[in-house]
Amino acid sequence: MVFTAGAVAALLNGAVDGNPDATLNDVCPIEHGRAGALTFLANPKYAHHLYTTAATAAIVANDFVPTAKVHCTLIRVKDPYAAFAILLEQYARMKRPAAGIHPTAFIDATATVGNDLFIGAHAVIDSGAMVGNGCHIHPQVYIGRNAKLGNNVTLHAGVRLLDDCTVGSNCTIHAGTVIGSDGFGFAPSDNAYGKVPQIGNVVIHDDVEIGANCTIDRATMGSTVIGKGVKLDNLIQVAHNVEIGEHTVIAAQTGIAGSTKIGRRCMIGGQVGIVGHLKIGDNVKIAAQSGIGSDVKDNALMQGSPAFDAGNYRRAYVSFRGLPKTVSIINELRMDVEELKKDRHDR
Amino acid sequence: MVFTAGAVAALLNGAVDGNPDATLNDVCPIEHGRAGALTFLANPKYAHHLYTTAATAAIVANDFVPTAKVHCTLIRVKDPYAAFAILLEQYARMKRPAAGIHPTAFIDATATVGNDLFIGAHAVIDSGAMVGNGCHIHPQVYIGRNAKLGNNVTLHAGVRLLDDCTVGSNCTIHAGTVIGSDGFGFAPSDNAYGKVPQIGNVVIHDDVEIGANCTIDRATMGSTVIGKGVKLDNLIQVAHNVEIGEHTVIAAQTGIAGSTKIGRRCMIGGQVGIVGHLKIGDNVKIAAQSGIGSDVKDNALMQGSPAFDAGNYRRAYVSFRGLPKTVSIINELRMDVEELKKDRHDR
Amino acid sequence: MVFTAGAVAALLNGAVDGNPDATLNDVCPIEHGRAGALTFLANPKYAHHLYTTAATAAIVANDFVPTAKVHCTLIRVKDPYAAFAILLEQYARMKRPAAGIHPTAFIDATATVGNDLFIGAHAVIDSGAMVGNGCHIHPQVYIGRNAKLGNNVTLHAGVRLLDDCTVGSNCTIHAGTVIGSDGFGFAPSDNAYGKVPQIGNVVIHDDVEIGANCTIDRATMGSTVIGKGVKLDNLIQVAHNVEIGEHTVIAAQTGIAGSTKIGRRCMIGGQVGIVGHLKIGDNVKIAAQSGIGSDVKDNALMQGSPAFDAGNYRRAYVSFRGLPKTVSIINELRMDVEELKKDRHDR
Repeated sequence: MVFTAGAVAALLNGAVDGNPDATLNDVCPIEHGRAGALTFLANPKYAHHLYTTAATAAIVANDFVPTAKVHCTLIRVKDPYAAFAILLEQYARMKRPAAGIHPTAFIDATATVGNDLFIGAHAVIDSGAMVGNGCHIHPQVYIGRNAKLGNNVTLHAGVRLLDDCTVGSNCTIHAGTVIGSDGFGFAPSDNAYGKVPQIGNVVIHDDVEIGANCTIDRATMGSTVIGKGVKLDNLIQVAHNVEIGEHTVIAAQTGIAGSTKIGRRCMIGGQVGIVGHLKIGDNVKIAAQSGIGSDVKDNALMQGSPAFDAGNYRRAYVSFRGLPKTVSIINELRMDVEELKKDRHDR
Repeated sequence: MVFTAGAVAALLNGAVDGNPDATLNDVCPIEHGRAGALTFLANPKYAHHLYTTAATAAIVANDFVPTAKVHCTLIRVKDPYAAFAILLEQYARMKRPAAGIHPTAFIDATATVGNDLFIGAHAVIDSGAMVGNGCHIHPQVYIGRNAKLGNNVTLHAGVRLLDDCTVGSNCTIHAGTVIGSDGFGFAPSDNAYGKVPQIGNVVIHDDVEIGANCTIDRATMGSTVIGKGVKLDNLIQVAHNVEIGEHTVIAAQTGIAGSTKIGRRCMIGGQVGIVGHLKIGDNVKIAAQSGIGSDVKDNALMQGSPAFDAGNYRRAYVSFRGLPKTVSIINELRMDVEELKKDRHDR
Repeated sequence: MVFTAGAVAALLNGAVDGNPDATLNDVCPIEHGRAGALTFLANPKYAHHLYTTAATAAIVANDFVPTAKVHCTLIRVKDPYAAFAILLEQYARMKRPAAGIHPTAFIDATATVGNDLFIGAHAVIDSGAMVGNGCHIHPQVYIGRNAKLGNNVTLHAGVRLLDDCTVGSNCTIHAGTVIGSDGFGFAPSDNAYGKVPQIGNVVIHDDVEIGANCTIDRATMGSTVIGKGVKLDNLIQVAHNVEIGEHTVIAAQTGIAGSTKIGRRCMIGGQVGIVGHLKIGDNVKIAAQSGIGSDVKDNALMQGSPAFDAGNYRRAYVSFRGLPKTVSIINELRMDVEELKKDRHDR
């Protein structure tokens, strides 16, 4: 795939500043430019790379003013990051997975599958499952009994979507993720634990993306719910009966315990732990590695384990770092005060 | 599957308070009741839902006294939670996986399998492996060479039970979990690390349940041991040569480093880290996100990273939250003391 | 496989102190000795086991002097741990996986595979992929389109090496690990998040070992890079565009956010979190559960969340544990100072 700088500029409604016939056959980060590649400059912090890059062309903002000689062709656009995302999108689209149903895939006779599908080698679609149109079911995926997928869903290699769980349209689930494992429910009985059967499911709404090797447990009864537009990173644990509100974003290795409800448009850092049966409001931000042990109000910013207001946490942590010095100050104060007391006594 | 309230009451040795002929075809949480569904009230905190629920019937305690008008049929029993677990168990049993051995499963000629099995599509049972009676081996499971399963074991989709590892009877292992990966053992040599071969195995005793996408490493020599009745949640790491005592329960995303021995009936929270070569006593409780860096005695309650007594941790943490204020008090004290000293000096 | 103590000593350039004809058919840890087994004593802390072990023979250091009667045959060598690793290596080599390509494996007609391969049941090697000589591709592995493996690579059961990713020679990747899942890249647009396509790959250099159920995301553009000789434990998250330097070792459940560069020969503990876009120097050591929030210089030792110098952290933490007492000292001081002030005022 080869394009000219002029063709790229036309696609992006941009203007060429340099050679419109320069040919481009790859994209690259600005710090690793090479001949034939197109790069972009969105963050002014990286501007110095532009003067030395070996890339053939670079997308920059309309109002970018070089402070040194630029050797590559510039393509000027309104928003370089957005423009580059459009190009990547185009590029990715050209690399779509192969279509068709692989002969080694197993589709149960009672399953229903749509049109324009890709179903990869050794994938299994079990009894009563329904797969919508335009889905990409990669090799070795398992779709359980009576599970349902909307349209244009991508399940990457080795995803397990277990019995009765449902996924909306335009969702992507990355390799190795398990949807619908049993919730962790045990009732003490005599000197052991008896299993509480987990008969609910997981419901994933439209436009959700879930990373690799995550685990999302089915509800004990009812549904574990992942709201529309939610984005989960890798290795995240979502326990039974959790509900995550629309457009909330969660970074890798975070865990949410049973029955907690998380609001909309929250941003939750990596390795955060949230205990069970809590209510987290809308637009809440939680710093990485925090532990949430009680309900959180809308718009709060939380940090610490257990977490409290992030600004207060940071101030307390500054004091924590200074503690050894503070303790020696206190010891000096004690001696001073002892002396003052003795002194008074002696008078 | 439709039951009457009277039939459910009979099954549970309960009494009907309302319409014994009310028909029930589903179960639901009390806050999401709907017509035709049966719910239960175990926690008095949720009693208010009972007066407004659309559920057709509810299981309540014998001594429950409504404080408002109840519209649904009540089924009175001694212990509503236990009664409901019995029903869920019945319900789950009716949804057993299909029996039989799928034609796409591969069973090595030298493997031995019992009776009343389910072996799903694309499962692989390798040479010398032994599978007991009544096991459910879900699609895409791998059972390694010379691995052994007792009776009534369920391995969910994509479980990997690797060479030489053994699982007792009545165990359940959830999707994507790996049993028997190599321990993390490397010996520094010159300027690199040489691998220490890991030739031991993993031994899982009876009545164990292990969540999804966990990793349990084989021993360097000897066995990594999971005791009878242990329950592990999702995404848990158990390193080589670890031993976990009977009926210990561990929440999601916890990690236990090599050769640590954990006692019986411990309760370990989520995202806990335990360093290697430690001895953790019986009945120990560890709060979520704690880091255990030294041996722990029986019955201890631990918190913090590094962890110490949980009560002391909480008191220290309260002081931590107040540190910025404490520091400003100290600064005031310093000024006061300076003034007192100066004052004394001036006299 | 049966050996005599004399044969083992000859293999290790050691000397027999006892019965050279003693027969050995197994290896064992020193605390679990049994007749017929060979054990070793490397750590003097475990020397007391030697006097009571039921093992038939033990490897000890040349200069080991027993302080009680030893019943087993001793094999004296220069470095018992290294000698034992050599034996384990021999032992492991005798247990190599079966060779050959399983009839249920699917290899695309456009893929290229080398000689002396093992390719297990239901493995999938997709179009354009290249697999070198002597590789062991275990059952249910997926090798994506145009992915490349060097020679002598072992991919354990259920590994997913996705499109365009490359693995050097002599690497081992454990079961369930995902290489090449999409980076977590989303651009806010209107009231939702738009996906930033991830078109880069993952490049793994020679002699790397990666544990079970890890996730290593592909770069947005360019490559996520795992340097030569790196060792990663289980359940580790490596985000898009991360680079890890040669011979760095990382313990389980650690997560590294996007675009961070980690130096060479670092040792990073378990459950560590490192935020994105940082530069971590060479020979850095990071304590378990730490959170790294800013660049780290060569040779630093870090602890805490957020982390700072480990020595200072430990001193601050000692003060933290004593905080409730410190606060009561401050309260006493306040009273003393108040009294001194009052006293002065009264004069």
